Amino acid sequence: MSVRLKRALDFAKDIVKGVIEDGDIVVDCTAGNGKDTLFLAELVGTRGKVYAFDIQNVAIENTRKALIDKGFIDRVTLICDGHEHILKYVRDKITCAVFNLGYLPGGNRNIITVPDKVIKAIKSCLELLLPGGIISIVSYTGHPGGKEELEAIIQFLKTLDQKKYAVANYRFLNQKNDPPQLIIIEKGRGERNWQQY
Amino acid sequence: MSVRLKRALDFAKDIVKGVIEDGDIVVDCTAGNGKDTLFLAELVGTRGKVYAFDIQNVAIENTRKALIDKGFIDRVTLICDGHEHILKYVRDKITCAVFNLGYLPGGNRNIITVPDKVIKAIKSCLELLLPGGIISIVSYTGHPGGKEELEAIIQFLKTLDQKKYAVANYRFLNQKNDPPQLIIIEKGRGERNWQQY
Repeated sequence: MSVRLKRALDFAKDIVKGVIEDGDIVVDCTAGNGKDTLFLAELVGTRGKVYAFDIQNVAIENTRKALIDKGFIDRVTLICDGHEHILKYVRDKITCAVFNLGYLPGGNRNIITVPDKVIKAIKSCLELLLPGGIISIVSYTGHPGGKEELEAIIQFLKTLDQKKYAVANYRFLNQKNDPPQLIIIEKGRGERNWQQY
Repeated sequence: MSVRLKRALDFAKDIVKGVIEDGDIVVDCTAGNGKDTLFLAELVGTRGKVYAFDIQNVAIENTRKALIDKGFIDRVTLICDGHEHILKYVRDKITCAVFNLGYLPGGNRNIITVPDKVIKAIKSCLELLLPGGIISIVSYTGHPGGKEELEAIIQFLKTLDQKKYAVANYRFLNQKNDPPQLIIIEKGRGERNWQQY
């Protein structure tokens, strides 16, 4: 007996690891302190590229330091702007985009991601996404505005055409401390029976 | 790029496969046509045991035929009774219990699982479950009563103590044809930080 239910973050990492190949181009929509950016940079390898967005300069600088420290800075483009402006900066087709919503860990808890901009960013990533690519969204509902943000994102994602996208949600039902939830969007490759879940 | 989001049934199988070891004792709470019973019988091996319940005689007989055909009949006890009576028949500690709710495929669609009895069966399985063991529930919401059944089960599971159990839910958000949802309950082993999801 060795199964233990995966945390949302670990589940997200497994999915992302399964989709990204050496040389891929991917987007970190919420660089934060750089944890996801580092993870992505390692996966895309020396021939790949990560675009990492954050609205806060301190987040971009923390991420830059972490990348320099690991020797990954050459494969990452850091952009200090809101993720709703992704299409201004990214023209490449991507295999993966990740969101880690909420506030900057260790930073100002009043600066949080907001539904309208997140949804705009998701729409941008859907445009850039290659068939078979995925978007991973980790959502926190413990802070003010968190539950409303998740609900707005879910309402938007419910409208995605099931012939083109599959949207899965992984969550814990009995945890009192509002653990993060995971949402994964996979873009179809035009298969028959794609929608047969 | 090779990830494709798992269907609820395949996700359930992966989890069940990860937890069952040779020689284990497990329960199939909804034998149906025997698909899950066969799967479990193979996993527990010649030294293990599967108790398989179904309220319908036709389901028990279909399951019996499938087991004889595969040579697994000796490791399975077939019980034609409702799963709410599990504790009348099973005294052993178990590592796994599975539910595949709704009606018998190919059978009478008016004979369906019902919330009160399913919840009683879940409570019985929680009593029998060893630390680290799991209960897998695949729920269908496309038939009349299906959505209400799932909602009642979720409301019950939300009350489970997070220090003792983790309850995860995997579902698709944008599928119009009511795909099955998966719920997994894992019994803790008394670890510190068990509830830290």
